[in-house]
Amino acid sequence: MEEKEISQAVISRLPRYFRYLGELKDGGTERISSQELSEIMKVTASQIRQDFNNFGGFGQQGYGYNVEFLYTEIGKILGLHKKHHLVLIGAGNLGQAIANYMNFEKRGFIINGIFDINKDLIGKRVRDIPVRPMEELESFVKEHNVDIGVLAIPKEAAADVAKRLVKCGIHAIWNFAHMDLNVPKDVLVENVHLSDSLMKLSYNINRCGKPEDHK
Amino acid sequence: MEEKEISQAVISRLPRYFRYLGELKDGGTERISSQELSEIMKVTASQIRQDFNNFGGFGQQGYGYNVEFLYTEIGKILGLHKKHHLVLIGAGNLGQAIANYMNFEKRGFIINGIFDINKDLIGKRVRDIPVRPMEELESFVKEHNVDIGVLAIPKEAAADVAKRLVKCGIHAIWNFAHMDLNVPKDVLVENVHLSDSLMKLSYNINRCGKPEDHK
Repeated sequence: MEEKEISQAVISRLPRYFRYLGELKDGGTERISSQELSEIMKVTASQIRQDFNNFGGFGQQGYGYNVEFLYTEIGKILGLHKKHHLVLIGAGNLGQAIANYMNFEKRGFIINGIFDINKDLIGKRVRDIPVRPMEELESFVKEHNVDIGVLAIPKEAAADVAKRLVKCGIHAIWNFAHMDLNVPKDVLVENVHLSDSLMKLSYNINRCGKPEDHK
Repeated sequence: MEEKEISQAVISRLPRYFRYLGELKDGGTERISSQELSEIMKVTASQIRQDFNNFGGFGQQGYGYNVEFLYTEIGKILGLHKKHHLVLIGAGNLGQAIANYMNFEKRGFIINGIFDINKDLIGKRVRDIPVRPMEELESFVKEHNVDIGVLAIPKEAAADVAKRLVKCGIHAIWNFAHMDLNVPKDVLVENVHLSDSLMKLSYNINRCGKPEDHK
């Protein structure tokens, strides 16, 4: 059922469904129609049905969706029933913000190791995880069965570190460095390019042309 | 020329063009064909031509693109020739990471004020900008002609702060809080949902089904 090719556009929407369903579940809602979900999420009901049909539906005609079931199923599709082991490269402000975000761990994303080149940071603890020197990266990754590398480092260092991660067997990189990584095809990269996001906002501000635009 | 409706998909790609063109320019490249740009950026040349045609083209048949001109023009389309004034709400790790990212200022995004509810942070300086108490938000926004509010706060506080920002005239919010904001239609919101991004990566890991998947 999951074997057909799902578009990245659909995949991009799944975490949002998961988020809303989690809130509905926590709020005690047991079932919901695509119409009601559509109103809360501000997407069309037909979009919701189409998206869910990629995974075989989930709904029963006239009954709607069972919130807990749907939440669990989407969680499984997202791979959240499995534990993921992460190393975080970069213990600066951004790295610390990522490490301190407790919700990741709740979702099965365990930060096993934190690494930095800055000698002043090495040995410090972020959420009780010691910051290690970069020299220990390869042996640590192998020992801890790490599957995701997180790059919270400047772009100048990113290409080199990505290469090291790939070389020691990591197939998934969550990249915050302000550049696109050049990695083999079988390595998954998910980028968070903050500047790109801010520029998109700037485009839309510019496009909407507030009268009081200040030069 | 810019008046027709450009799809958000095209807009999403503009910052990436801008980034690559900036690097080419800094590296001394004066002109480039769509074919060459295609190879560097790993998108098809026809995609590049189509995207640029939304804005009238930029290229000359047989000559290719003038890198500096294209860089400048895309920068203008992105509104980067104008200064934007920002307030940052939340001076935790994430807020500090954002404030410390020097490149934003280089692109015309000036952080005028930083606010937090945490009394221990108030008065501290992040990149020489003092952290102010939330009570001063409204008067500060009005005084400093602020046009973008940045939310680097937990989701519990986000709805309330967004409402305050909108009420004092801010029409653009860069939202890092892990929730969708409910704002009037004329308020632009650009979300950075870190969890959503990590879940997307997790989906793709799960989908690719590495044999050594560890439970």
